[in-house]
Formats: sequence, C-alpha cells, structure tokens
Amino acid sequence: MIAIGIDVGGMSIKGGSVSLDGKVLETFTMPVIKGEKQDITINKLIDALKAFINKHHYEGQILGIGLGIPGMIDSPKGIVFASSNLKWENLPIVKMLDDAFHLPIRITNDANAAALGEAIFGAGSKYNSSIMITLGTGVGGGVIIDHKLFEGNEGKGTELGHMVIVPNGLPCGCGRKGCLEQYASASALIRETKNAMLEHKDSKMWNLVNSVDEVNGKTVFDGVALNDTYAKEVLDNYIFYLGEGLLNFCNIFRPNVIILSGGIAKQGENLNSRLRAYMADRNYGYTNSPAVDLVSATLGYNAGIIGAATLIINK
Amino acid sequence: MIAIGIDVGGMSIKGGSVSLDGKVLETFTMPVIKGEKQDITINKLIDALKAFINKHHYEGQILGIGLGIPGMIDSPKGIVFASSNLKWENLPIVKMLDDAFHLPIRITNDANAAALGEAIFGAGSKYNSSIMITLGTGVGGGVIIDHKLFEGNEGKGTELGHMVIVPNGLPCGCGRKGCLEQYASASALIRETKNAMLEHKDSKMWNLVNSVDEVNGKTVFDGVALNDTYAKEVLDNYIFYLGEGLLNFCNIFRPNVIILSGGIAKQGENLNSRLRAYMADRNYGYTNSPAVDLVSATLGYNAGIIGAATLIINK
Repeated sequence: MIAIGIDVGGMSIKGGSVSLDGKVLETFTMPVIKGEKQDITINKLIDALKAFINKHHYEGQILGIGLGIPGMIDSPKGIVFASSNLKWENLPIVKMLDDAFHLPIRITNDANAAALGEAIFGAGSKYNSSIMITLGTGVGGGVIIDHKLFEGNEGKGTELGHMVIVPNGLPCGCGRKGCLEQYASASALIRETKNAMLEHKDSKMWNLVNSVDEVNGKTVFDGVALNDTYAKEVLDNYIFYLGEGLLNFCNIFRPNVIILSGGIAKQGENLNSRLRAYMADRNYGYTNSPAVDLVSATLGYNAGIIGAATLIINK
Repeated sequence: MIAIGIDVGGMSIKGGSVSLDGKVLETFTMPVIKGEKQDITINKLIDALKAFINKHHYEGQILGIGLGIPGMIDSPKGIVFASSNLKWENLPIVKMLDDAFHLPIRITNDANAAALGEAIFGAGSKYNSSIMITLGTGVGGGVIIDHKLFEGNEGKGTELGHMVIVPNGLPCGCGRKGCLEQYASASALIRETKNAMLEHKDSKMWNLVNSVDEVNGKTVFDGVALNDTYAKEVLDNYIFYLGEGLLNFCNIFRPNVIILSGGIAKQGENLNSRLRAYMADRNYGYTNSPAVDLVSATLGYNAGIIGAATLIINK
C-alpha cells in the first residue's frame, strides 16, 4: 500500500507516491498557471493524478491522498479558505478530489505538511513533539504534539511567522507591524546584510561579492568566518530575534525539539550552535524550563510530498 | 454522580463538589503553610478531602478528583514538576491521591483549569475553541481547542504570559525580558498609571485618590471617564500591548473567542469594547483572518474549582 502526497506551490504542483515508511517512490509535477480559474486547475490536477495512478498501476493500492496547500486552510471542512499566492478562495478541494477518486482526502497548510513529514519521517522522528520553523522568503511554522499535527482551531492556527515580536516594528505583508517574519526570515537576514555593507564600505563582506545584489543568506556567515565585525553584528542581531521567537514557541508549546528548515537552515551547525547557546543561556524560556533540542531538517526537497502523504499514513 | 475540583493556591487550597453540569454543590478550604514540606501538605489535603467526603456522604458517587496547581505540571505523568509559589518539586501528587482514594485523579496548571471551566461551563460554553487570559498580578493563559484542554507537550506549554512582546524589554520574574506579563498584567497597568500620575501633577486622576498607594486597576478607567489625557494615554498603551498579544494568540491558535478574567477584566465592556475595536482594526491577526469574539469570564471565584472538576467531567 502507498499514500499519495501533493505539495501545492505558487508555481507548480508536485506529487508523489510514498511508502508507509515515508519513502518517495515515484513523482510527477504540473505547472500552475497564474490567473487560471481555481476549478480548472483542480480539474487539471485530477487528470494528472489519474494519469500518474494509471502509469504506475497504483489502483487498489492507495490508502488516500494528502495535500499541503499554501494559505489558510479549513482542514476539518476540507476547504481552502484563502490562498493569496494561488488566488484560491473557498475552494472545496476535498470534496472535488473525493468525487473523482473515492479515497480518503486530507489537506493542511503547506508549512504544516512539511513539519509533519519532518516530525514523523525526518529530523523529528525520535521525538514526541516538535516544531518546524522554515526560514525562507517568510517564516513558516508547523507544530506536532504527541506525533500529531496541531493546527489550532479549524486548521487555521500556527501562523508562527506572524507573531509580532517588535510592537509597531517593520511592516509585514500580513498587515501587522513587527512580525517575527520581518526579523528572522532569509529575506530579513539578506536585507540587514546589505544594509550593513552599504553603511560600512570597510566590511570584509565586500571581499565576498561584487555588489549587494549578489548577497544571499550565506554571505553574513562567510563574513563572520572572515572575522568581520559588521557581519558578526548582523548575525548576532538575527540570532537575538530568531532566538526570542523560538523561546516564545518553547513557552507556548514546550516541544522536545525545534527543527529548522529553509534557505538559512542550510548553514547547519553554523546557525544551530549559536541558537542553542542563546536558548540555553536563557533557560529555554524561563527558569527551570526543560531543555529543547535544536536540529536541521533532513528531508529536503521532498519534505512537502512526504508530509502531505503523512496526513494519510499517520492517521 | 459528582466530581471533586481542587484549586491549589499559594495561600490556601479550595475544594468543592461539582455536579456534572458544572454547578458547585459544597466547598471546603484549608490553609497552606509557607515552608511546610510538600508531603505533609498533601497528607493534610488527603485528610481534609476524606473529612469532606464523609461529611457529605459522597462515597460511591465520586467520578474522580481534578486539581489545578500553580506552576509547571507534567499532567500525563501526574507530577508537579516545579511550583515556585508552593516550593513543590517533582511531587507525584496523582499517585499519592490515587493511593489514598482509588479514584481517577487528574491535574493541570491552575490557569489551564480555570480556562477549561470557563470554556465548558462559563463564558465559552457556546464556542468550540477558546483562550482565557487572566489579567492579574501576572498574565495567565489557558487554551481549549475543540472543547479539550490544550496543554502543549507534556502539559508544560501555554505559558502565554511569558511570550516576549518587546525584545530586551522590561525584566520579568521568569528571567526573560519584555514578556507580555510586564505590559498587560494588572500590575503593569497600575505601575503605568502611577508613573503617569507622578509625572503629571495636573492629571485628573489625582481627584480620584489621595496618594499613588491607592491606585488600583480601576483608577485609569475612572480617569478616562473624567476625560483625563494622561489616563487615556496609559489605557491606549495598555490596549496596544494587550491587543498585540491577543492578536499573536489569534494567529497561533485561531480560537473562536478570547475570554478575559482577573482583576482588570472586571472593567467589562469598558475594556472589551476598546480591545474589540483594536483587534477588528487589525483584521484579528492578518488580512482575511476570521473574526474572534472577546468576552468577560463569568464563573468568578469558583472558576478554579469548576475547572479542576471539569478535568474529570469533560473526559
């Protein structure tokens, strides 16, 4: 038996068959066309899925289909409430797929799906409870308590990147000011790296790139390796905000482990060792708090597919 | 049948019999003696409970005993991990009471117990999911998702008052700096009221008290009623920090309702209408967020007893 996991993105939909021990067997992709009506995209997805199932002779072997979708998802009702990336609104995707396949269909937010995959089959597999934080363009989060996905009420919670950490701070795309995302995302780190370089023409980071347009999430780490004062300052600030955000999540969820994923998490121990030191120094939240481990995600590119399939496997 | 609910405080332990529809039938109290060894206190509690049960002929009618205890509780293991108020540590209270009564025994943090009581039998009874925030000496929180208490991992989460909202802000008793508790508790509101009065001798709040020692959580509301500029400023600031904290909880848990309790919540609509306006103005968290109701707690003094009993009734 297998489960099918589908990772819906703004540019493309990736799907795959996943074994019950979390291995991706076969995959398919289909492009998402900007501005296309949502019903048309879903019908194309149904066709692509049917072709995939036929090609690999999966009929009769499928436990169900799980989907991770960006945006606000009402998972109990099976509806995409709103997805600003995809311009989907009130889309009864579970019913549409159920009508087509007569199989168990489950959906969740894409960050939740990836977190569930990592929790059950990746970096979190030896822990009961974990939080995965994705440090990318934004900051995404997923929470697993006792091996189960925690989505808040009606699947609409755990928007962890939109916790305000600096009241009246930097404006965020969500409409609030001072969200964690504005201080702890890859975009934020790159922004601050550029600012520091533009302000300090003597920064050793100028040895690493020809112009600030070449700055990426690694630049500041390379600058610190060169012992650049300005790079160190930028990274210390980043660790401070991200660390305070993670400590908030410790106090709110008290996971056994925090898993980092996304662009910045590729720095591995360069990032983790600093964050661990910060969190330990602050007692993992407050005096006498139990320690919380910190590790990097391991599933990589396929986390979304595995996680979406885990919605079915883990039931 | 009845359940017994016990509300453990730093000064006294209050207990009561609770009907299955959440009504307190009979009560008892016993003092807590500072510095007394934890085992001695628990043995006294067992004796008091036995006397209470005998007095009201409850034997054979008790579904179980629930306890709300201040501090960090490992509810699945039935252990008080640490209670700084009571100086209890690694106390296997569930086993001790089970040995004495041979009844189901459940424990949780006191803020969680009160929140559960309000959620099931009080202000939250018509909602699936609620958060109760207690605005007292500190800021306590409890989270109910789908009519069930959410405690985070191992019952050690939802320390909502210790979410840092101002990085490197005011020092908190928990060791962190800038916790919500330091900006949204009754103590914080009183502190800011006093500061404003001491700074502005022309404040109309001076008509309300003889000295700053008489300032309480109501003073600033009375000052606003007198149209005092300084009172208005203090209250606006308070609404701002509390509002941002509540919006964070909306994004993290997306409850149907937030219930306010504790000293400041006694201001009722004077407080609630302002907070509602603030939250609505900010889309209840982010663009397109579902609205979250805001109401005052209704169970009052007995919320702790009812909530502790609800641990048994609600199972």
